Amino acid sequence: MSAIPATRRMMHLGLFILGTGSHVAGWRQPAAVTSFEDFSAVQQIAATAERGLFDLIFMGDNLYADPAAHPSYTSRLEPLTMLSALATSTSRIGLGATASTTYGDPFTVARAFASLDHISGGRAAWNAVTTANAVSAANFGRDHPDHGQRYAIAEEFLSVVRGLWDCWDDDAVVKNRASGLYIDPKKVRALDHEGPFFQVKGPLNISRSPQGQPVVFQAGGSAPGQRLAARTADVVFSVVQDLAEARVQYAGFKAQLSAFGRQAEHVALLPGVMPVVGRTDREAFDRLGALQGFLSDESAIQLLSDRFGTDMSIYDLDGPVPDLELPDSYHSFAGVMLSKARRDRFSLRDVYNLMGAARGHWVLCGSAERIADTLQLWFETGAADGFNVMPPFFHEGFTDFVDGVVPILQERGLFRTAYEGETLRDHLGLERPARGEWPARLGRV
Amino acid sequence: MSAIPATRRMMHLGLFILGTGSHVAGWRQPAAVTSFEDFSAVQQIAATAERGLFDLIFMGDNLYADPAAHPSYTSRLEPLTMLSALATSTSRIGLGATASTTYGDPFTVARAFASLDHISGGRAAWNAVTTANAVSAANFGRDHPDHGQRYAIAEEFLSVVRGLWDCWDDDAVVKNRASGLYIDPKKVRALDHEGPFFQVKGPLNISRSPQGQPVVFQAGGSAPGQRLAARTADVVFSVVQDLAEARVQYAGFKAQLSAFGRQAEHVALLPGVMPVVGRTDREAFDRLGALQGFLSDESAIQLLSDRFGTDMSIYDLDGPVPDLELPDSYHSFAGVMLSKARRDRFSLRDVYNLMGAARGHWVLCGSAERIADTLQLWFETGAADGFNVMPPFFHEGFTDFVDGVVPILQERGLFRTAYEGETLRDHLGLERPARGEWPARLGRV
Repeated sequence: MSAIPATRRMMHLGLFILGTGSHVAGWRQPAAVTSFEDFSAVQQIAATAERGLFDLIFMGDNLYADPAAHPSYTSRLEPLTMLSALATSTSRIGLGATASTTYGDPFTVARAFASLDHISGGRAAWNAVTTANAVSAANFGRDHPDHGQRYAIAEEFLSVVRGLWDCWDDDAVVKNRASGLYIDPKKVRALDHEGPFFQVKGPLNISRSPQGQPVVFQAGGSAPGQRLAARTADVVFSVVQDLAEARVQYAGFKAQLSAFGRQAEHVALLPGVMPVVGRTDREAFDRLGALQGFLSDESAIQLLSDRFGTDMSIYDLDGPVPDLELPDSYHSFAGVMLSKARRDRFSLRDVYNLMGAARGHWVLCGSAERIADTLQLWFETGAADGFNVMPPFFHEGFTDFVDGVVPILQERGLFRTAYEGETLRDHLGLERPARGEWPARLGRV
Repeated sequence: MSAIPATRRMMHLGLFILGTGSHVAGWRQPAAVTSFEDFSAVQQIAATAERGLFDLIFMGDNLYADPAAHPSYTSRLEPLTMLSALATSTSRIGLGATASTTYGDPFTVARAFASLDHISGGRAAWNAVTTANAVSAANFGRDHPDHGQRYAIAEEFLSVVRGLWDCWDDDAVVKNRASGLYIDPKKVRALDHEGPFFQVKGPLNISRSPQGQPVVFQAGGSAPGQRLAARTADVVFSVVQDLAEARVQYAGFKAQLSAFGRQAEHVALLPGVMPVVGRTDREAFDRLGALQGFLSDESAIQLLSDRFGTDMSIYDLDGPVPDLELPDSYHSFAGVMLSKARRDRFSLRDVYNLMGAARGHWVLCGSAERIADTLQLWFETGAADGFNVMPPFFHEGFTDFVDGVVPILQERGLFRTAYEGETLRDHLGLERPARGEWPARLGRV
């Protein structure tokens, strides 16, 4: 293992929940959960994550249906309603929901996450996304803004939301029965935001929430995405394939923070990883093989076309990876995959096999011991502050990790053995910000 | 009592939840709930409503904060997150949340309520409102559309939402593990809506929900509001003060239904009522008196100005009700109150006392027996299909009703003694619509 000794620094674990599993064909596994609309299955998954002492459950999103796409993209619960419902059936785990800065509005988003934070006692996280896929626009009667425009909108959107969260002093609600004063109006102020994309007066009609500011997640891998995250996010969910590349990305991202008056420990970087766990390495590879055996040429072409944003049926699946010009609406997955493919001389089918497994994320296959070793190596050698765990299917594909890998990480002193705090900020080691701190940092007075 | 015999027709009861009570000063009552952001109090209220076998809990909304307004308007949980969280802690009661057709978009609204319907096993209701108060516009960087425009938008919004809810056949999700077919693409279709206000391609990325179509509530009292409700709603929440007036409104509304191919029993009309219950009539009036004693001249002027949409500080509180021209953004409350005031020669303070009590709704004060008698009279003489109960404060102001009035209604065969069905439609006696039925009714093919 690494020469860097284990310290008190602890790994953070998020569960990336897609009900039928992150593997596109995970639902075909015998006994796997087959629906992302079955809330009782979702509750059971959340209970497993909480038993495993995960920092949070985290739900991505998309804003269109394509019956040929990943089952959990096409028939799924809406994130905010789902995570709110989970607030009641869980007690400590963080609850992260995705909402778009391109197809939402900041007043509604700020309000919903503040509400989830109140309901859950300080466990809310917002995953702010710009919505890459242009197909979404047709469901909102809009033109899809280009990549640069989407990030310009997102920068302002984030400032407005963080400003709205800070309109109320923590002690603004007085509730004085004798005098009849319910709210001290001097402790509530408008936002009066007037920007190029948004004009929002405020204040919110909900008081400052338990975390002060709900936790903000981001996953954008492009340069504007990294800049937005360095400026505004608390946690970054990244897409990587190799340790060396992950270290470079980690160092590069952390270096950007100082430009925004922030320190390395202010933002946790969590690469996504699909663990395929076996009692032995052999068993794990057999399990992955069984999952990969469900993939078909049709689904290959559909997924590659979706991810690369261009019709891939014109290329030979068993030929080399063509020289693609990535469109503006690319997923960061696509760039990572293309660079890996060129480095490792992949055929298009090899790329697809990796994408079909985890949609471009890192697949980590082996015994529980091997997986723990690898996660430790990444964690201790400057590649990660923890991981977003993307089980290939539920429930077994996740319980294998919780019951096999988590105990090893705990034995090694790398992961908590009990929740020590109450809020998601507590789990992540992030302080509760004072009112006004974030708006000041983002350039407001 | 009335000459019309009690039949198998059963009363429907909704709980209108405002956490600090519908009475503007309800929170000042000793031991009353003082927060609409305390989710544990909300859970307890919901448990009481379910114990009382209510059809549903129903939450209004507003989209701006005014520290001088009703406490539960100003610091409140957001409806969809709150009702979703309640889905887990309740099992049978319906869950109604308000969402605006002026400041939301139909894809997001359709998706969220379909999701709540899946999560709750068929208990979701959407209260579609056009958002009367112009102050809201400043939180969305928009101009507030005038009354006619708001209803034109709402008509189209409702058609789009009902269309989106019907994009999926009930059996579209195949989940065939052997063949790998997850969704039968022939059973999912786009909406392809192109209207003056909305262009929405669809389909939703969530399958048809347990109720087929979540229940739709409306509360608009104006002529366009009644037309919209007659065309698109399942339940109407009305504002009335007097039995005679309520009968006229009831008959008039039911008569409008046939123009849209609907029958009287297809839409339940539920007047709002604030019950103030005592062991005796005297005790009830003392309780109301104590609540009214909390009202101040300042709050009177603020509330009157808000409700009438004009500065009321220029009038003498103890003088007659001035000849007001109601602005475009009027609440239906305002019209009802003005006509009552003219009829009964109210002073402005009398109007305020009634408004402060229940914001313009009917206040029904007396012993449990008297309240049951009155509700029965309204129910059996063509004034109501049931009631939206608006407790002045929680918990006692509501448990008094559940433990005092509900048993009397049950003894008289007017209200259920157990939930007989699973879904909100079951409770309301509404059939689950076939796919395509609503879009066809609303003029789509």
